Amino acid sequence: MRQNQQVVLASRPEGLPKESDFRVVSVPLRDLAADEVMVRVIYLSVDPYMRGRISGIKSYAEPVGIGEVMVGGAVGVVIESRSGSVPVGSYVTGFFGWQEYAITGTKSLRLVDPKIAPISTALGVLGMTGLTAYFGLYRVGEMRDGDSVLISGAAGAVGSIAGQIAKLGNCRVVGIAGTDAKVDYLTRELGFDAAFNYKTTSHYAASITELCPQGVDVYFDNVGGAITDAVIPLMNVHGRVAVCGQISQYNLEQPEMGPRWMSQLIVKRTKVQGFLVGDYAADFSKALAQLGQWLGEGKLRYIEQIEEGGIGAAPKAFIDMLQGGNSGKQLVRISQD
Amino acid sequence: MRQNQQVVLASRPEGLPKESDFRVVSVPLRDLAADEVMVRVIYLSVDPYMRGRISGIKSYAEPVGIGEVMVGGAVGVVIESRSGSVPVGSYVTGFFGWQEYAITGTKSLRLVDPKIAPISTALGVLGMTGLTAYFGLYRVGEMRDGDSVLISGAAGAVGSIAGQIAKLGNCRVVGIAGTDAKVDYLTRELGFDAAFNYKTTSHYAASITELCPQGVDVYFDNVGGAITDAVIPLMNVHGRVAVCGQISQYNLEQPEMGPRWMSQLIVKRTKVQGFLVGDYAADFSKALAQLGQWLGEGKLRYIEQIEEGGIGAAPKAFIDMLQGGNSGKQLVRISQD
Repeated sequence: MRQNQQVVLASRPEGLPKESDFRVVSVPLRDLAADEVMVRVIYLSVDPYMRGRISGIKSYAEPVGIGEVMVGGAVGVVIESRSGSVPVGSYVTGFFGWQEYAITGTKSLRLVDPKIAPISTALGVLGMTGLTAYFGLYRVGEMRDGDSVLISGAAGAVGSIAGQIAKLGNCRVVGIAGTDAKVDYLTRELGFDAAFNYKTTSHYAASITELCPQGVDVYFDNVGGAITDAVIPLMNVHGRVAVCGQISQYNLEQPEMGPRWMSQLIVKRTKVQGFLVGDYAADFSKALAQLGQWLGEGKLRYIEQIEEGGIGAAPKAFIDMLQGGNSGKQLVRISQD
Repeated sequence: MRQNQQVVLASRPEGLPKESDFRVVSVPLRDLAADEVMVRVIYLSVDPYMRGRISGIKSYAEPVGIGEVMVGGAVGVVIESRSGSVPVGSYVTGFFGWQEYAITGTKSLRLVDPKIAPISTALGVLGMTGLTAYFGLYRVGEMRDGDSVLISGAAGAVGSIAGQIAKLGNCRVVGIAGTDAKVDYLTRELGFDAAFNYKTTSHYAASITELCPQGVDVYFDNVGGAITDAVIPLMNVHGRVAVCGQISQYNLEQPEMGPRWMSQLIVKRTKVQGFLVGDYAADFSKALAQLGQWLGEGKLRYIEQIEEGGIGAAPKAFIDMLQGGNSGKQLVRISQD
């Protein structure tokens, strides 16, 4: 019987997760039931939201229990099928978790066409990452032609796509990132109008004021904390803050204290709105068509960092990503294509 | 020549304003120019927003300068007129400031019909107060039939109207106020489903959870601070926070620190939006017609506290109001009707 290597949660992390908070186990794969398929996972996605899912606090989804397989999106190929609609050889993406093989029904699968783009993009620019950037800007941020758009975590998976989508929407785009190399990449390769390294900037507000001379209409926030505190008073009247992530806060054991700035929201009539991409599922296919068109026309670039170490390397890739070690989308190669 | 007593700003307050931060001056009234009218002020409104206007920080409007007449809405009667459209004897409301007489053009005036309701209501339920409650709930809070609505500063001018409008909209309404008498008034007289006294409650979140068993769909926030910190995690998915005021913060010299809760906005996809009623001016007349209808049908009650001491009593009435001394609308009688 074929064995399946899985990464399970070994203990609830305190602060930044450690590799010892995870454990690799090997379990035998059962036979397929009717209408099920077996997927050999090729790429696994590791993302900031996973930190929340292992915190033990009930959020929008149940937390991962101790001893349970880590959750996560992945892409792979069907190697056994009892489904009439998804034959062996199909490339599929779904929420397969951190494991080498997934046995699943077909309703939650999305077919991936390897002729359109490399299959890894189903986890990135043509998947949740691209969709998050798209809906965050347009639906939550209500982005309009000519807006001044500021993006924190701009070199991350979502931020790097969001900046390019904003440029395609005729906006002026400024990014905030954590290394000089990332700042260079944003401005030289991805077309951001400006960017700065928050780790070498002593006064965030001064940098933002300098780089956003027209103020900020849309703030796409991936990080929160002191950076966001600095942005709020610089929002334009009727500006919108799309709250995508708060990675600066995810590893804190206690809520961090910060200056209260809600009075500023009145002065500027600012809207601050959190979102989850799943709320826009009804419009995914339309948005994916748009993202695919931009990608095909060479208007959208994506960065992937692929950890080649197999399923056992997933914890380290995840922990490095939480610390900003990546540019763009962080993937783990689980098997060869 | 007739003399006009005015209250001018004598010094920028530090923290809670003191009476000595204001000074009464007497100035002669000039003759009217063409199309101008002279208004004898009858009631002056004192409101929380005025604290921001004397802080010296440029906000949505220029701050009141030292030696300048305090800003404020008022209602009065025209005693001289060089306008064809606004004859002597007309009741009018406008932004007349803290003074006994105002000389003004007629474009910024609104005529008040004393047959519909007492003229003081032009400053309250049939004026900015009622409009703020109405647009805050419906436009910013996107209030819908059956919603669970929570209101802080619920016994204040805006809060007490907002709660009644929410009841008229078939919502379940809970108020937060600062005395047991206010709590009684909200539940026994104004029809709130429940209310609690935050000054005698040690654990805000527990009280809110108990009184809002269905969570909170719309939070109409007049106060901010620790009360709002407690509400945010209790918002329902896709809940809306209408940020009307932050009176707990207005007298602070330094921004207060509080726990960062933006991650909660993602979990619940909460919208937090500040607003100023002036942004909805295009729809004022429609909303006033609705408010007037409810008032006429006896469906809307209003509370006024009238300080009878004349223009010189305005500073004290303002300072008392900032400390929650009032229930409902705080007015100052400047002259007899």
